[in-house]
Amino acid sequence: MFKIKFLPYNLEVFASPEETIIEIAMRCGIHINASCGGAGACNKCKIIIEEGKVKGEVIDNNFYKACQTFPLSDLRVRIPVESYIDKRAEFLKPKKKASFLSKEIEKLPEPPFKKLYLKLQPPTIEENFSDWIRIKYTLEKEKILNPELNINILRKLPYVLREKNFEITLNLYYDLRKDRYYLIDIESGNKVSQNLGVAVDLGTTTLQLELIDLNTGEVLASISDYNPQISYGEDVISRIEFAKRKDGLKILANSVKEKIGFLIDEMLKATKKNFDSINLISVAGNTVMSHLFLELEPKYLREYPYTPVTTEFPLIFAKELGLPFKDSTLIQLAPCKASYMGGDIVAGIVASRMAEEEPLTLFIDLGTNGEIVLGNREFLICASCSAGPAFEGGGIKNGIRAVSGAIEAVNIDPITFEPMILTINKKPPKGICGSGIISLLANLFKVGIINKAGKFVKNIKHPRIREGEEGWEYVVVWKEDSAIGEDIVFTENDIENVIRAKGAIFAGCQILLESVGLTFEDLERIYLAGTFGNYIDLEEAITIGLLPDIPREKFFFLGNTSLEGAKLALLYKETLLKMEKVVNMMTNIELSVYPKYMEYYMAALFLPHTDEMLFPSVKT
Amino acid sequence: MFKIKFLPYNLEVFASPEETIIEIAMRCGIHINASCGGAGACNKCKIIIEEGKVKGEVIDNNFYKACQTFPLSDLRVRIPVESYIDKRAEFLKPKKKASFLSKEIEKLPEPPFKKLYLKLQPPTIEENFSDWIRIKYTLEKEKILNPELNINILRKLPYVLREKNFEITLNLYYDLRKDRYYLIDIESGNKVSQNLGVAVDLGTTTLQLELIDLNTGEVLASISDYNPQISYGEDVISRIEFAKRKDGLKILANSVKEKIGFLIDEMLKATKKNFDSINLISVAGNTVMSHLFLELEPKYLREYPYTPVTTEFPLIFAKELGLPFKDSTLIQLAPCKASYMGGDIVAGIVASRMAEEEPLTLFIDLGTNGEIVLGNREFLICASCSAGPAFEGGGIKNGIRAVSGAIEAVNIDPITFEPMILTINKKPPKGICGSGIISLLANLFKVGIINKAGKFVKNIKHPRIREGEEGWEYVVVWKEDSAIGEDIVFTENDIENVIRAKGAIFAGCQILLESVGLTFEDLERIYLAGTFGNYIDLEEAITIGLLPDIPREKFFFLGNTSLEGAKLALLYKETLLKMEKVVNMMTNIELSVYPKYMEYYMAALFLPHTDEMLFPSVKT
Repeated sequence: MFKIKFLPYNLEVFASPEETIIEIAMRCGIHINASCGGAGACNKCKIIIEEGKVKGEVIDNNFYKACQTFPLSDLRVRIPVESYIDKRAEFLKPKKKASFLSKEIEKLPEPPFKKLYLKLQPPTIEENFSDWIRIKYTLEKEKILNPELNINILRKLPYVLREKNFEITLNLYYDLRKDRYYLIDIESGNKVSQNLGVAVDLGTTTLQLELIDLNTGEVLASISDYNPQISYGEDVISRIEFAKRKDGLKILANSVKEKIGFLIDEMLKATKKNFDSINLISVAGNTVMSHLFLELEPKYLREYPYTPVTTEFPLIFAKELGLPFKDSTLIQLAPCKASYMGGDIVAGIVASRMAEEEPLTLFIDLGTNGEIVLGNREFLICASCSAGPAFEGGGIKNGIRAVSGAIEAVNIDPITFEPMILTINKKPPKGICGSGIISLLANLFKVGIINKAGKFVKNIKHPRIREGEEGWEYVVVWKEDSAIGEDIVFTENDIENVIRAKGAIFAGCQILLESVGLTFEDLERIYLAGTFGNYIDLEEAITIGLLPDIPREKFFFLGNTSLEGAKLALLYKETLLKMEKVVNMMTNIELSVYPKYMEYYMAALFLPHTDEMLFPSVKT
Repeated sequence: MFKIKFLPYNLEVFASPEETIIEIAMRCGIHINASCGGAGACNKCKIIIEEGKVKGEVIDNNFYKACQTFPLSDLRVRIPVESYIDKRAEFLKPKKKASFLSKEIEKLPEPPFKKLYLKLQPPTIEENFSDWIRIKYTLEKEKILNPELNINILRKLPYVLREKNFEITLNLYYDLRKDRYYLIDIESGNKVSQNLGVAVDLGTTTLQLELIDLNTGEVLASISDYNPQISYGEDVISRIEFAKRKDGLKILANSVKEKIGFLIDEMLKATKKNFDSINLISVAGNTVMSHLFLELEPKYLREYPYTPVTTEFPLIFAKELGLPFKDSTLIQLAPCKASYMGGDIVAGIVASRMAEEEPLTLFIDLGTNGEIVLGNREFLICASCSAGPAFEGGGIKNGIRAVSGAIEAVNIDPITFEPMILTINKKPPKGICGSGIISLLANLFKVGIINKAGKFVKNIKHPRIREGEEGWEYVVVWKEDSAIGEDIVFTENDIENVIRAKGAIFAGCQILLESVGLTFEDLERIYLAGTFGNYIDLEEAITIGLLPDIPREKFFFLGNTSLEGAKLALLYKETLLKMEKVVNMMTNIELSVYPKYMEYYMAALFLPHTDEMLFPSVKT
């Protein structure tokens, strides 16, 4: 880590050699003009390196492009006048990742899937039990009673036993929920070391996978990609509709299964591991995704009274799903609570451990629905907020998902109204993703371009503020700098959608708290889950009234807790039972049946809120 | 029942109108000459009806053919001089079927397979559990916890539930051995009445099946036919050899599965029942047959130290075996003890209840191997005697299985040496089956045609006693009367084979008894199992020294106990557990490791035995 001193602010921060100067500046709230998202195209983000070494491109003799320059030592960086207009630097605390998340993983794994090496006595005329009884008796000594057994194992049993003189490796799955063992497979010799698992976060938009050594708990590889079901519908509703077509459900199921198979294959290739070493795949997904994955009828999920086919899932062999693995590969899924409270949230709650601890915690997963869970080890109450897809770029004119070139952070200069933008992977900007949308809205509001109601202040004369075809809008990126050949704008309509989304979540949190007689002040922790949650700027989220204005140290970014929960279920046999207990603990409330919900929602359709007392730290 | 008085013997017996006079006479030990087996061809069995009405064919004015004549009232029947030579009538007790065998069946069935009709509350917004959880909670009220569930049920669940407004019938299997429920299928509405099962005795030679109503226990139909594997080998050894060929095991498995499917179909057609009503198939077979049925490698069964793949069998879905039933049809098999002590015997022991009762019992199943089990509720010890196939007609020149036209009973006149024979279904004689072989041997010995050593007494001059191509022989049926166009003979070589077989069984019984310090006199019951056992004549079996010479009232003919056991396992959920307990109770001894076995065997190679003191009632 290097020490970077920004002048004229006299602000020092630590930074790694992997960060560009513009990223470091953005993180510290230092404005540097930038239009190209960090692609190195606009030449606006000029800085002067007064001291220290950097790797970067020199322009106009003395300057470096902040978006292309990395520190190689401690630095003194000066932002020249043309690159900034004075802006009070606000030092944001680095995002805290809840430390206990990794603690669990440090325990020695005790996976539900276990490989047991046995050296059996070969039969004699005095002890000529059948091959299976020989194994059964040995298992009984290990307190493994009455495992479920299938005919395929019996068919290969005599050959496997005799291949290495009665040395075998049993593949066992233990379901703690039923206290039941399953004999999954049998191999000759000692095959204990070949024991891999895959954790899958089965997201509506994104699949995130990790390849894990079940013996050590080590993450060998990780990968993520779109859920290919997107081609058949962006959100869960349109996929449920697609599933009603002839073979629609099968098409959806096959597409995601194929992709999962492909992604696992990629990880195996990268780690030079064998396909047949995959023994257990642990999946966490929302209720719709879980239904589509298993080819279960999804239509009743969105028909009143919103009944899933099932909220708990049996152990399934890969071959039953037609997944391209060896026959004995197993699939387990995180249980769901209700149609709109899925296994991803249940897995997240377990990963967060909030249901095992004392502090009153509000868990917020900022996906399409905005699921929120309130509670601690005494109780859990949850609701889905129907926030809509605004935070995933849906319903936003230039909204896109968090892909390369998506604007993920914005700063607007309060004097010039010029934006500084950063894009994912520093590619030329294509559109605005969730964290960029929050950032943009917060900035427009803070610099006074829009008012409390989210409407443009009409008397500002500025080329970036104009009346477009769809009403008033702010031009975030001019056509020349954009990757899409046209201006990237943020419209009044977009703003309305975002405000509705944040209002739904905030009002949902209020109802949850009120339903148990509590207030935001009682909260000891707020957990922000979801990969998206990991990228948002806390101050900006509070500024727009998405998150409550409580002491910042109470906030924790947990990252992808769905994946984390799926991984825990892979590594610890008690995890699925914990998830089942969480499901049983949870009281799911339908916000729509609370008359006050609409009232709170309406009050939240302002920036930050109608009731400014709720957001004392947000100054306009 | 009519009272039939035979003159000149002045012997009265009861008989049913279904029996021919010659059958009644045979049963009472009254000799009537007969050569055609009851086919009505030889015209030798003339009788005079002195009183009463009969249905039959009159010949030579005053006579009836005994083999074609049935009583229609009480009768006085005189055997004319030409039809008999004085023979002391020996009244044989009618065969006793152990009465308790049917007692069990009279209890109301409590099958492991159960149909449970449920009228569920449709979901409301307040109670919108998932479909499966709705069922699970209802099952919990019925004390049915954590049933095993499969994905196929979940896939159809929402449709089935909604087809008849949440009225459903669950198909459940309860495995008492594991105290575990399996949800097998789910149907809409009340389908409790459609609940059939099939009991299968999977014999090496013969398949015997019963179609049973699982709700009432009623036997709706029964059928039997050859095991089609016979085409690939008559006995278990030759089938194990066949299984070593390419696809041999698959061919054997498929042939018997196909035949079972066909036979079940026949029973369903006869009773106008639906194929899809078959829910459970309960099979009992010896260890080799069970292996071949499930396509398990059989070769180690006959390789030292004779290890089966398994002696207990998991629950199997018909589809896993490729059986032509609905996917949810289940197969359960009776557990085996060892390579040569199979599920047929275990099922038989359970059907006989000897392991639940006090009296010391010797259970003898006279099949190819001659399995014997000694014990009571305190202990069970068992052995397989390697008797060979003589009692099934194997290794006997004119030996055949118990088919139409097989000679099943013989009486030889002590003066004329002329035989009286009865064939199965009264068809012209084709050969001699097991009971006929015993009968023939006993008669040849009793009338002095052969001596104690089983050798022909050479100084008898009689056309039926002659030296043939393979040594000395007795002509049972002349070419003119036979269905095979040649003489049916019983050779000295045949006699030797039969003596070896009976010697093996008798010596086996001696060793079993001796191994626990007991003698024949300690036996309180002898149970004779197997359909063949049902047809043999007790006195003749004792005469040749196959069965011990103990009071006749201690003998019980049990019939097909393997089928009976399979049926009990269909109707009572505790049966498979009882079988498992029997297997665990049993001590299987290898006769060959007892040095005295060979000694006893050698001593038993005489008629009835070297030690005549063992057979005081057999007078020569």
